[in-house]
Amino acid sequence: MDSYKDFLALNVATLAGRLKNLAILQEQIGIDHKAWQVREVGDGNLNLVFIVEGPKGAAVVKQALPYVRLVGDSWPLPLKRSFFEHHALTRQSQRDLGMTPKIFSFDEEQAIIIMEYLTPHVILRRALIEGRKIPDLPNKLGCFLARTLFRGSDLCMETKLRKADLALFSDNVALCDITETLVFSDPYYDAKLNRHTAPQLDGIVGQLRTDRDLKVAAQRLKHIFANMPETLIHGDLHTGSVMVTDHDVRVIDPEFAFYGPMAFDVGMLLANFWMSYFSQRGHEGPTPRDSMRRYLLKTIVQIWNIFRAEFSRLWHSERTGILYQRQLFEDQNDALGSAQALDQFLHGIWVDMLGFAGVEMHRRILGLAHNADFELITDPDMRAACETKALKLGRHLAVNRAQIHSMAEINALAERLETEIVR
Amino acid sequence: MDSYKDFLALNVATLAGRLKNLAILQEQIGIDHKAWQVREVGDGNLNLVFIVEGPKGAAVVKQALPYVRLVGDSWPLPLKRSFFEHHALTRQSQRDLGMTPKIFSFDEEQAIIIMEYLTPHVILRRALIEGRKIPDLPNKLGCFLARTLFRGSDLCMETKLRKADLALFSDNVALCDITETLVFSDPYYDAKLNRHTAPQLDGIVGQLRTDRDLKVAAQRLKHIFANMPETLIHGDLHTGSVMVTDHDVRVIDPEFAFYGPMAFDVGMLLANFWMSYFSQRGHEGPTPRDSMRRYLLKTIVQIWNIFRAEFSRLWHSERTGILYQRQLFEDQNDALGSAQALDQFLHGIWVDMLGFAGVEMHRRILGLAHNADFELITDPDMRAACETKALKLGRHLAVNRAQIHSMAEINALAERLETEIVR
Repeated sequence: MDSYKDFLALNVATLAGRLKNLAILQEQIGIDHKAWQVREVGDGNLNLVFIVEGPKGAAVVKQALPYVRLVGDSWPLPLKRSFFEHHALTRQSQRDLGMTPKIFSFDEEQAIIIMEYLTPHVILRRALIEGRKIPDLPNKLGCFLARTLFRGSDLCMETKLRKADLALFSDNVALCDITETLVFSDPYYDAKLNRHTAPQLDGIVGQLRTDRDLKVAAQRLKHIFANMPETLIHGDLHTGSVMVTDHDVRVIDPEFAFYGPMAFDVGMLLANFWMSYFSQRGHEGPTPRDSMRRYLLKTIVQIWNIFRAEFSRLWHSERTGILYQRQLFEDQNDALGSAQALDQFLHGIWVDMLGFAGVEMHRRILGLAHNADFELITDPDMRAACETKALKLGRHLAVNRAQIHSMAEINALAERLETEIVR
Repeated sequence: MDSYKDFLALNVATLAGRLKNLAILQEQIGIDHKAWQVREVGDGNLNLVFIVEGPKGAAVVKQALPYVRLVGDSWPLPLKRSFFEHHALTRQSQRDLGMTPKIFSFDEEQAIIIMEYLTPHVILRRALIEGRKIPDLPNKLGCFLARTLFRGSDLCMETKLRKADLALFSDNVALCDITETLVFSDPYYDAKLNRHTAPQLDGIVGQLRTDRDLKVAAQRLKHIFANMPETLIHGDLHTGSVMVTDHDVRVIDPEFAFYGPMAFDVGMLLANFWMSYFSQRGHEGPTPRDSMRRYLLKTIVQIWNIFRAEFSRLWHSERTGILYQRQLFEDQNDALGSAQALDQFLHGIWVDMLGFAGVEMHRRILGLAHNADFELITDPDMRAACETKALKLGRHLAVNRAQIHSMAEINALAERLETEIVR
């Protein structure tokens, strides 16, 4: 932590004065820093985020704090997460060009990343809560998943470089610990930081915490999360980490990035669409959201299909790493061997992805970090009804993941949960 | 490599002069270095090994060379493997006291480890070739496996320390590359460094290299090897890395150590017992080796059973890590949940272990690094007959590992292969 000893948090009053000499900001916003307008917009759990605007344009200034913003300084958190976010953004932009914000500068000591101001982008989660349908979303997200996950793995990268990068990111211990604790363990016992819609959910919460198969499944998934560094994953890829317009999709906030299982990013992302699906009833108002619900289930199918298609394309065109080498397959005229291996590989991602989706749905309802999809439903009975459906689907996915054959099957179950009382 | 710029290989003539001032050696061997007797005994593939004896005692001096001893300086290999060996020995001695040689000193720049001279120990592989039965072997090896693998994992260690250690060992790239290449890929295509007993094995070699299921299985195992750092593994735990007397068992040479899958050490070790089993026919002479063969199969069963029992004991008594936390099971009066998880965990090791055993049998017969069990059989027809059985068992294990239920089933197949012509 020595390199951060001179750390000082920014605020709206000091920001312009402190950053005025940065050439890239002068170029982006304007030379006269007195004309810069600064506002704080951070609504995440961990960091300070400012938008700086001036005569020439705007930029986002994101600064880590030495504690968890959501909880306060009783929960210290290393500033170095900013370093990992910067390195993750750099790698993601190489692996899927144009899908992350442009980086203007990085100050490690002050844990400040200055980046492109995305406008008129909104957080995808908010758009979905409002019932907005985003064009081209499945394509962008499916390809982002396939490209970042494939290209950071031993299927593609030089192993020596991957191992050095793994060592670099292995110090992102504190943020991994958050996931390990809040996602995989806390929801399944009476942990201190938990909260849920009470008393409405008390019954099902009690059931889930005595559900032996579920607890074993969640711990198996934790084992995979902690001990399977296949690739550089985003680590927190929910709908709150995606910004959209009708013409653009960007992925932000990869400070949880580390070398982990490919299936984690996929599962967490899809879980947030299923939660959006079950939360729609709570935001329905006078106009029914049937079309939005159909859109969400279709989007899940499409993201998975595009992920599979793009991953398969890369398997055939960029498989230059040490795993499943061409010498053993294509070069021996055994294209079907390569196809068989690809099917098995994707099946492994499918099975684990469903499990990660299941526990993600649980922790967002039972753990510390809830999501706006449910939180903005003010009637607790309605909220609990929506949440119950997600909890049930999550349990089904986590426990039965190895026997589930298709998205159609899962979405049919989601529809039954939405329309019938399913025990 | 800068820290090694003054590296100079030892030899019999220079060793005493160069090491004479080491207090620990003076104490161990005698103050007058002119009375030291030095002989080179290294017969491994990678390093220089000397025994130094004097009036007070003896020591082993092991020095890495900047290339692969077996191949020559056309294959450079980092001296830093000595650093990893030293760190692995230190950790193993903490995790299973008395099972590794005592370390007297380590010189990183010269890549020299000075350690206890084990006498009258012999290499286990040689003892088995001679038909010797070693008392207490399964107990010592089964416990060594369970203790080193469990205690270096997230089941037991503090995760932050495990991740830092993982980062340290992730630089052991060159030695991992040897395994990744020579064990998992080269045997399955016409790689340059391969050799096999020809022409006798040409037929089966051709079959194995066009065996799609086998190739896919071997690559899946490579994926697990490279991407599942569960614990600090020995990385080269065959019967040539074990030294024995009738009263003692020690594990040596962990320079391949890195964070990898638990199942790898278990599978490689057992594979070498199965190969010993199939090689006995070639060393039989006038006295039949029936009893030795029974001993070897029984030893395999016992090592696995003791590994399971000791691992289970540690699961219940030392499960202090982030995985399968007691809060979710025992602390909720759910002892059966913990038992269910343990069964699943051990089942995972079982399945992968069989796969690793399978590919280990293949690479010792088809790849670069053969083993003395078969190599010392001078009649090529006899050698090929023994090797063929091991190749067949290896294929069976690698491909069918998820459907194999017991050691009894495998050993019955081994006995059929030994006594019948099984296609």
